[in-house]
Amino acid sequence: MNRSELSQLIRKKQSFLCVGLDTDITLIPPHLLKCDDPVFEFNKAIIDATHDIAIAYKPNLAFYESRGLKGWQSLEKTMNYLAQFKNEIFTIADAKRGDIGNTSKMYAKTFFEHLNFDSVTVAPYMGEDSVTPFLEYKDKWVILLGLTSNKGSSDFQFLETGNGKLYETVIRKAQQWGTADQLMFVIGATHPEQFKSIRALAPDYFFLVPGVGSQGGDLDKICENGLNAQTGLIINSARQIMYASKGEDFAQAAKAEALKVKQAMGKFLAPL
Amino acid sequence: MNRSELSQLIRKKQSFLCVGLDTDITLIPPHLLKCDDPVFEFNKAIIDATHDIAIAYKPNLAFYESRGLKGWQSLEKTMNYLAQFKNEIFTIADAKRGDIGNTSKMYAKTFFEHLNFDSVTVAPYMGEDSVTPFLEYKDKWVILLGLTSNKGSSDFQFLETGNGKLYETVIRKAQQWGTADQLMFVIGATHPEQFKSIRALAPDYFFLVPGVGSQGGDLDKICENGLNAQTGLIINSARQIMYASKGEDFAQAAKAEALKVKQAMGKFLAPL
Repeated sequence: MNRSELSQLIRKKQSFLCVGLDTDITLIPPHLLKCDDPVFEFNKAIIDATHDIAIAYKPNLAFYESRGLKGWQSLEKTMNYLAQFKNEIFTIADAKRGDIGNTSKMYAKTFFEHLNFDSVTVAPYMGEDSVTPFLEYKDKWVILLGLTSNKGSSDFQFLETGNGKLYETVIRKAQQWGTADQLMFVIGATHPEQFKSIRALAPDYFFLVPGVGSQGGDLDKICENGLNAQTGLIINSARQIMYASKGEDFAQAAKAEALKVKQAMGKFLAPL
Repeated sequence: MNRSELSQLIRKKQSFLCVGLDTDITLIPPHLLKCDDPVFEFNKAIIDATHDIAIAYKPNLAFYESRGLKGWQSLEKTMNYLAQFKNEIFTIADAKRGDIGNTSKMYAKTFFEHLNFDSVTVAPYMGEDSVTPFLEYKDKWVILLGLTSNKGSSDFQFLETGNGKLYETVIRKAQQWGTADQLMFVIGATHPEQFKSIRALAPDYFFLVPGVGSQGGDLDKICENGLNAQTGLIINSARQIMYASKGEDFAQAAKAEALKVKQAMGKFLAPL
Protein backbone atom coordinates (compact mmCIF):
# COMPACT_ATOMS: atom_id res chain seq x y z
CA MET A 1 0.00 0.00 0.00
CA ASN A 2 1.46 3.40 -0.97
CA ARG A 3 1.09 6.70 0.88
CA SER A 4 -1.70 8.05 -1.28
CA GLU A 5 -3.70 4.82 -0.88
CA LEU A 6 -3.19 4.96 2.88
CA SER A 7 -4.39 8.56 3.04
CA GLN A 8 -7.44 7.70 0.94
CA LEU A 9 -8.21 4.74 3.18
CA ILE A 10 -8.14 7.02 6.23
CA ARG A 11 -10.47 9.47 4.52
CA LYS A 12 -12.82 6.71 3.39
CA LYS A 13 -13.05 5.04 6.80
CA GLN A 14 -12.88 8.34 8.70
CA SER A 15 -10.41 6.70 11.03
CA PHE A 16 -6.69 6.39 11.58
CA LEU A 17 -6.98 3.68 14.19
CA CYS A 18 -4.63 0.71 14.28
CA VAL A 19 -5.66 -2.24 16.44
CA GLY A 20 -2.72 -3.92 18.13
CA LEU A 21 -2.85 -7.71 18.11
CA ASP A 22 -0.68 -8.34 21.19
CA THR A 23 -2.60 -11.53 21.70
CA ASP A 24 -1.73 -13.10 25.04
CA ILE A 25 -3.23 -16.56 25.48
CA THR A 26 -3.48 -15.96 29.25
CA LEU A 27 -5.66 -12.87 28.74
CA ILE A 28 -8.13 -13.96 26.06
CA PRO A 29 -11.65 -15.05 27.00
CA PRO A 30 -11.49 -18.52 28.58
CA HIS A 31 -14.23 -19.98 26.36
CA LEU A 32 -11.81 -19.71 23.38
CA LEU A 33 -9.26 -22.03 24.98
CA LYS A 34 -11.18 -25.08 23.80
CA CYS A 35 -10.54 -24.09 20.13
CA ASP A 36 -7.70 -25.67 18.15
CA ASP A 37 -5.99 -22.31 17.79
CA PRO A 38 -7.36 -19.92 20.45
CA VAL A 39 -5.04 -17.07 19.44
CA PHE A 40 -6.14 -17.16 15.82
CA GLU A 41 -9.83 -17.50 16.77
CA PHE A 42 -9.45 -14.47 19.02
CA ASN A 43 -7.72 -12.42 16.32
CA LYS A 44 -10.30 -13.45 13.72
CA ALA A 45 -13.17 -12.35 15.95
CA ILE A 46 -11.45 -9.03 16.73
CA ILE A 47 -10.78 -8.44 13.02
CA ASP A 48 -14.34 -9.37 12.03
CA ALA A 49 -15.71 -6.93 14.60
CA THR A 50 -13.39 -4.00 13.87
CA HIS A 51 -12.21 -4.10 10.23
CA ASP A 52 -14.68 -1.41 9.17
CA ILE A 53 -13.43 0.89 11.92
CA ALA A 54 -9.69 0.24 11.91
CA ILE A 55 -7.36 1.03 9.03
CA ALA A 56 -4.51 -1.14 10.31
CA TYR A 57 -3.66 -4.16 12.45
CA LYS A 58 -0.36 -4.55 14.26
CA PRO A 59 0.53 -8.04 15.47
CA ASN A 60 3.26 -7.85 18.10
CA LEU A 61 5.74 -10.55 17.18
CA ALA A 62 6.83 -11.30 20.75
CA PHE A 63 3.39 -12.61 21.67
CA TYR A 64 3.51 -15.14 18.82
CA GLU A 65 7.18 -16.16 19.10
CA SER A 66 6.81 -16.87 22.81
CA ARG A 67 4.58 -19.81 21.83
CA GLY A 68 7.09 -21.21 19.31
CA LEU A 69 5.71 -23.15 16.34
CA LYS A 70 2.13 -22.81 17.56
CA GLY A 71 2.58 -19.05 17.77
CA TRP A 72 3.99 -18.83 14.25
CA GLN A 73 1.06 -20.84 12.99
CA SER A 74 -1.38 -18.41 14.66
CA LEU A 75 0.50 -15.48 13.11
CA GLU A 76 0.55 -16.98 9.61
CA LYS A 77 -3.17 -17.78 9.84
CA THR A 78 -3.88 -14.24 11.01
CA MET A 79 -1.93 -12.78 8.07
CA ASN A 80 -3.70 -15.12 5.64
CA TYR A 81 -7.03 -14.04 7.10
CA LEU A 82 -6.13 -10.35 6.76
CA ALA A 83 -5.19 -10.90 3.10
CA GLN A 84 -8.91 -10.72 2.16
CA PHE A 85 -8.87 -7.02 3.18
CA LYS A 86 -5.93 -6.25 0.90
CA ASN A 87 -6.76 -2.64 0.02
CA GLU A 88 -8.79 -1.96 3.14
CA ILE A 89 -6.23 -2.76 5.83
CA PHE A 90 -2.59 -1.78 6.34
CA THR A 91 -0.57 -4.39 8.23
CA ILE A 92 2.29 -3.69 10.63
CA ALA A 93 4.74 -6.29 11.96
CA ASP A 94 5.70 -4.90 15.34
CA ALA A 95 9.07 -6.61 15.51
CA LYS A 96 11.65 -3.89 16.35
CA ARG A 97 14.25 -5.65 14.19
CA GLY A 98 17.59 -4.29 12.91
CA ASP A 99 20.94 -5.99 12.32
CA ILE A 100 23.92 -5.94 9.95
CA GLY A 101 22.99 -5.75 6.26
CA ASN A 102 22.87 -9.44 5.33
CA THR A 103 20.76 -10.16 8.43
CA SER A 104 18.34 -7.26 7.99
CA LYS A 105 17.86 -8.54 4.44
CA MET A 106 16.69 -11.86 5.91
CA TYR A 107 14.32 -10.09 8.30
CA ALA A 108 12.92 -8.08 5.38
CA LYS A 109 12.31 -11.37 3.58
CA THR A 110 10.54 -12.74 6.66
CA PHE A 111 8.11 -9.87 7.04
CA PHE A 112 7.62 -8.65 3.46
CA GLU A 113 7.83 -11.89 1.50
CA HIS A 114 7.05 -14.77 3.82
CA LEU A 115 4.40 -13.09 5.99
CA ASN A 116 3.45 -10.38 3.46
CA PHE A 117 3.20 -7.48 5.91
CA ASP A 118 2.96 -3.94 4.52
CA SER A 119 5.41 -2.62 7.10
CA VAL A 120 7.77 -3.55 9.92
CA THR A 121 9.05 -1.63 12.94
CA VAL A 122 12.85 -1.28 12.98
CA ALA A 123 15.28 -0.11 15.70
CA PRO A 124 17.80 2.56 14.61
CA TYR A 125 20.82 1.89 16.85
CA MET A 126 22.84 0.04 14.18
CA GLY A 127 22.41 2.80 11.57
CA GLU A 128 21.90 3.02 7.83
CA ASP A 129 22.93 -0.44 6.57
CA SER A 130 20.67 -2.07 9.18
CA VAL A 131 17.67 -0.16 7.81
CA THR A 132 18.16 0.08 4.04
CA PRO A 133 17.56 -3.64 3.23
CA PHE A 134 13.96 -3.08 4.39
CA LEU A 135 13.60 -0.05 2.11
CA GLU A 136 14.24 -1.98 -1.09
CA TYR A 137 10.67 -3.27 -1.35
CA LYS A 138 8.25 -1.16 -3.40
CA ASP A 139 5.16 -0.05 -1.47
CA LYS A 140 6.44 -1.68 1.73
CA TRP A 141 7.39 0.43 4.74
CA VAL A 142 9.96 0.76 7.48
CA ILE A 143 8.55 2.23 10.68
CA LEU A 144 11.66 3.39 12.50
CA LEU A 145 11.75 3.94 16.26
CA GLY A 146 12.00 7.68 16.85
CA LEU A 147 10.71 8.54 20.32
CA THR A 148 9.23 5.53 22.07
CA SER A 149 6.33 5.48 24.53
CA ASN A 150 8.04 3.68 27.42
CA LYS A 151 9.74 5.05 30.51
CA GLY A 152 13.16 3.89 29.24
CA SER A 153 12.86 6.31 26.31
CA SER A 154 14.46 8.85 28.66
CA ASP A 155 17.66 6.79 29.04
CA PHE A 156 19.18 7.48 25.62
CA GLN A 157 16.64 9.06 23.27
CA PHE A 158 16.74 12.45 25.02
CA LEU A 159 20.55 12.68 25.15
CA GLU A 160 21.90 15.90 23.62
CA THR A 161 24.02 14.96 20.61
CA GLY A 162 25.32 18.35 19.50
CA ASN A 163 22.64 18.84 16.86
CA GLY A 164 19.54 18.13 18.92
CA LYS A 165 18.51 15.18 21.02
CA LEU A 166 19.27 11.63 19.90
CA TYR A 167 15.68 10.98 18.74
CA GLU A 168 15.79 14.19 16.69
CA THR A 169 19.11 13.16 15.15
CA VAL A 170 17.63 9.76 14.28
CA ILE A 171 14.55 11.34 12.67
CA ARG A 172 16.66 13.86 10.75
CA LYS A 173 19.26 11.35 9.55
CA ALA A 174 16.80 8.62 8.56
CA GLN A 175 15.11 11.00 6.12
CA GLN A 176 18.32 10.74 4.06
CA TRP A 177 17.72 6.99 3.81
CA GLY A 178 14.03 6.82 2.96
CA THR A 179 11.35 9.17 1.67
CA ALA A 180 7.92 9.74 3.20
CA ASP A 181 6.70 7.07 0.76
CA GLN A 182 8.91 4.39 2.34
CA LEU A 183 9.51 5.38 5.91
CA MET A 184 7.43 6.26 8.97
CA PHE A 185 8.47 6.91 12.57
CA VAL A 186 7.27 5.49 15.87
CA ILE A 187 6.45 8.45 18.12
CA GLY A 188 4.97 7.50 21.49
CA ALA A 189 1.73 9.13 22.63
CA THR A 190 3.22 9.55 26.08
CA HIS A 191 5.26 12.53 24.80
CA PRO A 192 2.49 14.89 23.57
CA GLU A 193 4.66 17.96 24.23
CA GLN A 194 7.18 16.76 21.62
CA PHE A 195 4.74 16.23 18.75
CA LYS A 196 4.81 19.80 17.44
CA SER A 197 8.59 19.92 17.05
CA ILE A 198 8.77 16.37 15.66
CA ARG A 199 6.10 17.23 13.08
CA ALA A 200 8.19 20.28 12.09
CA LEU A 201 11.22 18.01 11.71
CA ALA A 202 9.41 15.51 9.45
CA PRO A 203 6.42 17.33 7.97
CA ASP A 204 5.42 14.72 5.39
CA TYR A 205 6.13 11.47 7.22
CA PHE A 206 3.53 9.24 8.82
CA PHE A 207 3.93 8.58 12.56
CA LEU A 208 2.82 5.35 14.17
CA VAL A 209 1.68 6.38 17.63
CA PRO A 210 1.51 3.75 20.36
CA GLY A 211 0.68 4.55 23.95
CA VAL A 212 -2.87 5.88 23.66
CA GLY A 213 -5.10 4.01 26.12
CA SER A 214 -3.39 1.72 28.62
CA GLN A 215 -0.17 3.72 28.52
CA GLY A 216 -1.99 7.02 29.11
CA GLY A 217 -1.42 9.09 25.93
CA ASP A 218 -3.83 11.94 25.16
CA LEU A 219 -5.42 11.59 21.69
CA ASP A 220 -6.56 15.22 21.37
CA LYS A 221 -3.13 16.70 22.07
CA ILE A 222 -1.45 14.23 19.71
CA CYS A 223 -3.87 15.16 16.92
CA GLU A 224 -3.64 18.89 17.50
CA ASN A 225 0.14 18.79 17.20
CA GLY A 226 0.79 15.80 14.99
CA LEU A 227 -1.66 15.84 12.06
CA ASN A 228 -0.52 16.86 8.59
CA ALA A 229 -2.32 17.29 5.25
CA GLN A 230 -2.41 13.51 4.61
CA THR A 231 -3.38 12.93 8.27
CA GLY A 232 0.10 11.55 8.90
CA LEU A 233 -0.88 9.66 12.03
CA ILE A 234 -1.72 6.04 12.74
CA ILE A 235 -2.86 5.70 16.34
CA ASN A 236 -2.40 2.28 17.85
CA SER A 237 -4.58 0.90 20.59
CA ALA A 238 -4.13 -2.67 21.76
CA ARG A 239 -5.10 -3.74 25.26
CA GLN A 240 -7.97 -1.24 25.63
CA ILE A 241 -9.70 -2.73 22.58
CA MET A 242 -8.57 -6.37 22.67
CA TYR A 243 -9.35 -6.96 26.31
CA ALA A 244 -12.45 -4.75 26.65
CA SER A 245 -14.30 -7.84 27.89
CA LYS A 246 -13.25 -11.32 28.92
CA GLY A 247 -16.73 -12.70 28.26
CA GLU A 248 -18.36 -14.17 25.17
CA ASP A 249 -19.14 -10.58 24.12
CA PHE A 250 -15.42 -9.70 23.77
CA ALA A 251 -15.63 -8.92 20.05
CA GLN A 252 -18.65 -6.65 20.48
CA ALA A 253 -16.94 -4.95 23.43
CA ALA A 254 -13.81 -4.48 21.28
CA LYS A 255 -15.94 -2.96 18.54
CA ALA A 256 -17.53 -0.54 20.99
CA GLU A 257 -14.09 0.56 22.23
CA ALA A 258 -12.77 0.93 18.67
CA LEU A 259 -15.82 3.04 17.79
CA LYS A 260 -15.13 5.34 20.74
CA VAL A 261 -11.60 5.98 19.46
CA LYS A 262 -12.87 6.48 15.91
CA GLN A 263 -15.46 8.98 17.15
CA ALA A 264 -12.78 10.88 19.06
CA MET A 265 -10.79 11.06 15.81
CA GLY A 266 -13.77 12.38 13.82
CA LYS A 267 -13.38 16.03 14.72
CA PHE A 268 -9.83 16.01 13.34
CA LEU A 269 -10.78 14.60 9.93
CA ALA A 270 -12.32 16.57 7.09
CA PRO A 271 -15.82 15.21 6.42
CA LEU A 272 -16.23 13.07 3.30
CA MET B 1 25.61 -21.13 32.73
CA ASN B 2 27.15 -18.62 35.14
CA ARG B 3 30.28 -16.51 34.64
CA SER B 4 32.61 -18.76 36.57
CA GLU B 5 31.41 -21.83 34.61
CA LEU B 6 31.91 -19.95 31.36
CA SER B 7 35.46 -18.96 32.32
CA GLN B 8 36.24 -22.54 33.31
CA LEU B 9 34.87 -23.81 30.03
CA ILE B 10 37.16 -21.44 28.12
CA ARG B 11 40.13 -22.62 30.14
CA LYS B 12 39.23 -26.27 29.69
CA LYS B 13 38.73 -26.01 25.92
CA GLN B 14 41.55 -23.47 25.48
CA SER B 15 39.21 -21.55 23.21
CA PHE B 16 36.82 -18.63 23.31
CA LEU B 17 35.40 -19.27 19.87
CA CYS B 18 31.69 -18.96 19.13
CA VAL B 19 30.47 -20.46 15.88
CA GLY B 20 27.70 -18.41 14.27
CA LEU B 21 24.85 -20.48 12.85
CA ASP B 22 23.63 -17.97 10.24
CA THR B 23 22.43 -20.92 8.21
CA ASP B 24 21.34 -19.81 4.74
CA ILE B 25 19.68 -22.58 2.76
CA THR B 26 21.00 -21.04 -0.49
CA LEU B 27 24.62 -21.33 0.73
CA ILE B 28 24.77 -24.80 2.28
CA PRO B 29 26.26 -27.73 0.35
CA PRO B 30 23.80 -28.78 -2.37
CA HIS B 31 23.90 -32.47 -1.41
CA LEU B 32 22.08 -31.60 1.84
CA LEU B 33 19.06 -30.24 0.01
CA LYS B 34 17.64 -33.73 -0.41
CA CYS B 35 17.30 -34.12 3.39
CA ASP B 36 13.98 -33.47 5.14
CA ASP B 37 15.47 -30.55 7.04
CA PRO B 38 18.65 -29.40 5.29
CA VAL B 39 19.23 -26.51 7.70
CA PHE B 40 19.15 -28.76 10.75
CA GLU B 41 21.31 -31.42 9.05
CA PHE B 42 23.84 -28.73 8.20
CA ASN B 43 23.83 -27.35 11.77
CA LYS B 44 24.12 -30.83 13.24
CA ALA B 45 27.15 -31.64 11.09
CA ILE B 46 28.82 -28.32 11.95
CA ILE B 47 28.15 -28.88 15.66
CA ASP B 48 29.41 -32.48 15.53
CA ALA B 49 32.63 -31.30 13.86
CA THR B 50 33.33 -28.28 16.07
CA HIS B 51 31.83 -28.79 19.55
CA ASP B 52 35.20 -29.71 21.04
CA ILE B 53 36.74 -26.52 19.66
CA ALA B 54 33.95 -23.98 20.13
CA ILE B 55 32.60 -22.87 23.49
CA ALA B 56 29.44 -21.31 22.05
CA TYR B 57 27.00 -21.41 19.15
CA LYS B 58 25.04 -18.40 18.00
CA PRO B 59 22.04 -19.05 15.75
CA ASN B 60 21.04 -15.86 13.97
CA LEU B 61 17.27 -15.69 14.25
CA ALA B 62 16.72 -13.89 10.95
CA PHE B 63 17.97 -16.87 8.96
CA TYR B 64 15.40 -19.15 10.63
CA GLU B 65 12.45 -16.75 10.67
CA SER B 66 12.83 -16.00 6.98
CA ARG B 67 11.73 -19.61 6.34
CA GLY B 68 8.65 -19.33 8.57
CA LEU B 69 7.41 -22.50 10.27
CA LYS B 70 10.09 -24.64 8.62
CA GLY B 71 12.76 -22.29 9.91
CA TRP B 72 11.39 -22.40 13.47
CA GLN B 73 11.38 -26.17 13.29
CA SER B 74 15.06 -26.17 12.24
CA LEU B 75 15.88 -23.80 15.09
CA GLU B 76 14.01 -25.85 17.72
CA LYS B 77 15.71 -29.02 16.50
CA THR B 78 19.10 -27.31 16.63
CA MET B 79 18.48 -26.17 20.21
CA ASN B 80 17.27 -29.65 21.20
CA TYR B 81 20.41 -31.11 19.66
CA LEU B 82 22.63 -28.64 21.52
CA ALA B 83 20.96 -29.58 24.82
CA GLN B 84 23.18 -32.69 25.04
CA PHE B 85 26.19 -30.37 25.51
CA LYS B 86 24.56 -28.58 28.44
CA ASN B 87 27.69 -27.68 30.41
CA GLU B 88 30.03 -27.72 27.43
CA ILE B 89 28.39 -25.15 25.19
CA PHE B 90 27.02 -21.65 25.79
CA THR B 91 24.14 -20.73 23.49
CA ILE B 92 23.40 -17.26 22.12
CA ALA B 93 20.16 -16.23 20.41
CA ASP B 94 21.29 -13.50 18.05
CA ALA B 95 17.97 -11.73 17.89
CA LYS B 96 18.65 -8.02 18.65
CA ARG B 97 15.31 -7.72 20.43
CA GLY B 98 14.09 -4.94 22.74
CA ASP B 99 10.62 -3.46 23.27
CA ILE B 100 8.39 -2.03 26.00
CA GLY B 101 8.40 -4.03 29.23
CA ASN B 102 5.45 -6.37 28.69
CA THR B 103 6.76 -7.20 25.21
CA SER B 104 10.39 -7.74 26.23
CA LYS B 105 9.00 -10.08 28.87
CA MET B 106 7.44 -12.15 26.07
CA TYR B 107 10.72 -12.18 24.11
CA ALA B 108 12.55 -13.32 27.25
CA LYS B 109 10.03 -16.14 27.54
CA THR B 110 10.65 -17.06 23.88
CA PHE B 111 14.41 -17.32 24.16
CA PHE B 112 14.96 -18.40 27.76
CA GLU B 113 11.96 -20.66 28.37
CA HIS B 114 10.66 -21.87 25.04
CA LEU B 115 13.99 -22.23 23.21
CA ASN B 116 16.17 -22.51 26.33
CA PHE B 117 19.03 -20.29 25.15
CA ASP B 118 21.64 -19.17 27.68
CA SER B 119 21.65 -15.64 26.31
CA VAL B 120 20.03 -13.24 23.87
CA THR B 121 21.32 -10.14 22.08
CA VAL B 122 19.29 -7.01 22.91
CA ALA B 123 19.23 -3.52 21.35
CA PRO B 124 19.55 -0.62 23.81
CA TYR B 125 17.62 2.21 22.10
CA MET B 126 14.46 1.80 24.22
CA GLY B 127 16.34 1.93 27.52
CA GLU B 128 16.11 0.22 30.89
CA ASP B 129 12.59 -1.23 30.95
CA SER B 130 13.21 -2.82 27.54
CA VAL B 131 16.23 -4.67 28.93
CA THR B 132 15.38 -5.58 32.54
CA PRO B 133 12.74 -8.26 31.76
CA PHE B 134 15.57 -10.31 30.23
CA LEU B 135 17.69 -9.88 33.37
CA GLU B 136 15.21 -11.58 35.65
CA TYR B 137 16.33 -15.12 34.75
CA LYS B 138 19.05 -16.64 36.93
CA ASP B 139 22.16 -17.73 35.00
CA LYS B 140 20.73 -16.37 31.75
CA TRP B 141 22.35 -13.43 30.00
CA VAL B 142 21.56 -10.25 28.13
CA ILE B 143 24.17 -9.39 25.49
CA LEU B 144 23.51 -5.71 24.87
CA LEU B 145 24.61 -3.93 21.70
CA GLY B 146 27.45 -1.58 22.59
CA LEU B 147 29.55 -0.84 19.53
CA THR B 148 28.48 -2.89 16.53
CA SER B 149 30.69 -4.21 13.71
CA ASN B 150 28.80 -2.74 10.76
CA LYS B 151 29.40 0.45 8.78
CA GLY B 152 26.20 2.01 10.16
CA SER B 153 27.68 1.91 13.66
CA SER B 154 29.11 5.33 12.79
CA ASP B 155 25.66 6.88 12.29
CA PHE B 156 24.61 7.13 15.94
CA GLN B 157 26.92 5.09 18.18
CA PHE B 158 29.81 7.58 17.88
CA LEU B 159 27.68 10.67 18.58
CA GLU B 160 29.04 12.79 21.43
CA THR B 161 26.47 12.81 24.23
CA GLY B 162 28.07 15.16 26.75
CA ASN B 163 29.57 12.34 28.81
CA GLY B 164 31.32 10.36 26.08
CA LYS B 165 30.08 8.85 22.88
CA LEU B 166 26.68 7.17 22.70
CA TYR B 167 28.13 3.65 22.82
CA GLU B 168 30.13 4.62 25.91
CA THR B 169 27.03 6.06 27.56
CA VAL B 170 25.15 2.84 26.78
CA ILE B 171 27.92 0.69 28.25
CA ARG B 172 28.20 2.89 31.35
CA LYS B 173 24.45 3.16 31.98
CA ALA B 174 23.68 -0.53 31.39
CA GLN B 175 26.07 -1.51 34.19
CA GLN B 176 23.52 0.05 36.56
CA TRP B 177 20.93 -2.44 35.27
CA GLY B 178 22.89 -5.68 35.27
CA THR B 179 26.09 -7.03 36.82
CA ALA B 180 28.91 -8.80 34.98
CA ASP B 181 27.13 -12.04 35.95
CA GLN B 182 24.01 -11.12 33.94
CA LEU B 183 25.10 -8.80 31.19
CA MET B 184 27.62 -8.81 28.34
CA PHE B 185 28.18 -6.33 25.53
CA VAL B 186 28.46 -6.73 21.77
CA ILE B 187 31.66 -5.00 20.67
CA GLY B 188 32.47 -5.35 16.97
CA ALA B 189 35.92 -6.59 15.95
CA THR B 190 36.01 -3.92 13.24
CA HIS B 191 36.81 -1.29 15.93
CA PRO B 192 40.07 -2.67 17.41
CA GLU B 193 41.26 0.82 18.36
CA GLN B 194 38.28 1.17 20.77
CA PHE B 195 38.81 -2.06 22.71
CA LYS B 196 41.26 -0.65 25.24
CA SER B 197 38.98 2.17 26.36
CA ILE B 198 35.88 -0.04 26.32
CA ARG B 199 37.67 -2.62 28.47
CA ALA B 200 38.55 0.19 30.91
CA LEU B 201 34.89 1.21 30.98
CA ALA B 202 33.64 -2.32 31.75
CA PRO B 203 36.58 -4.26 33.20
CA ASP B 204 34.67 -7.34 34.37
CA TYR B 205 32.10 -7.78 31.64
CA PHE B 206 32.27 -10.33 28.86
CA PHE B 207 32.24 -8.96 25.29
CA LEU B 208 30.74 -10.88 22.40
CA VAL B 209 32.89 -9.92 19.43
CA PRO B 210 31.48 -10.38 15.92
CA GLY B 211 33.29 -9.25 12.80
CA VAL B 212 36.42 -11.41 12.90
CA GLY B 213 36.81 -13.17 9.55
CA SER B 214 34.46 -12.11 6.74
CA GLN B 215 34.05 -8.64 8.20
CA GLY B 216 37.81 -8.12 8.56
CA GLY B 217 38.44 -7.77 12.32
CA ASP B 218 41.95 -8.46 13.65
CA LEU B 219 41.98 -11.17 16.35
CA ASP B 220 45.40 -10.29 17.80
CA LYS B 221 44.58 -6.62 18.35
CA ILE B 222 41.22 -7.50 19.89
CA CYS B 223 42.86 -9.93 22.31
CA GLU B 224 45.73 -7.60 23.25
CA ASN B 225 43.28 -4.86 24.18
CA GLY B 226 40.16 -6.74 25.19
CA LEU B 227 41.14 -9.69 27.40
CA ASN B 228 40.55 -9.60 31.15
CA ALA B 229 41.35 -12.02 33.98
CA GLN B 230 38.37 -14.28 33.13
CA THR B 231 39.21 -13.95 29.40
CA GLY B 232 36.15 -11.75 29.00
CA LEU B 233 35.89 -12.30 25.23
CA ILE B 234 33.74 -14.55 23.09
CA ILE B 235 34.88 -14.25 19.48
CA ASN B 236 32.23 -15.10 16.91
CA SER B 237 33.02 -16.45 13.48
CA ALA B 238 30.21 -17.51 11.17
CA ARG B 239 30.66 -17.49 7.39
CA GLN B 240 34.38 -18.28 7.46
CA ILE B 241 33.71 -21.52 9.33
CA MET B 242 30.24 -22.50 8.10
CA TYR B 243 30.95 -22.02 4.43
CA ALA B 244 34.60 -23.14 4.35
CA SER B 245 33.59 -25.69 1.72
CA LYS B 246 30.47 -26.30 -0.33
CA GLY B 247 31.40 -29.94 -0.90
CA GLU B 248 30.67 -33.11 1.04
CA ASP B 249 33.70 -32.25 3.19
CA PHE B 250 32.05 -29.08 4.55
CA ALA B 251 32.07 -30.23 8.18
CA GLN B 252 35.75 -31.21 8.07
CA ALA B 253 36.57 -27.92 6.37
CA ALA B 254 34.62 -26.07 9.08
CA LYS B 255 36.55 -27.96 11.73
CA ALA B 256 39.87 -27.00 10.10
CA GLU B 257 38.85 -23.32 10.05
CA ALA B 258 37.68 -23.47 13.67
CA LEU B 259 40.99 -25.05 14.68
CA LYS B 260 42.88 -22.22 13.00
CA VAL B 261 40.99 -19.67 15.09
CA LYS B 262 41.49 -21.73 18.24
CA GLN B 263 45.22 -21.95 17.57
CA ALA B 264 45.41 -18.20 17.05
CA MET B 265 43.72 -17.81 20.45
CA GLY B 266 46.17 -20.16 22.19
CA LYS B 267 48.91 -17.63 22.85
CA PHE B 268 46.47 -15.43 24.74
CA LEU B 269 45.30 -18.17 27.12
CA ALA B 270 47.21 -19.39 30.15
CA PRO B 271 48.18 -23.03 29.59
CA LEU B 272 46.19 -25.63 31.53
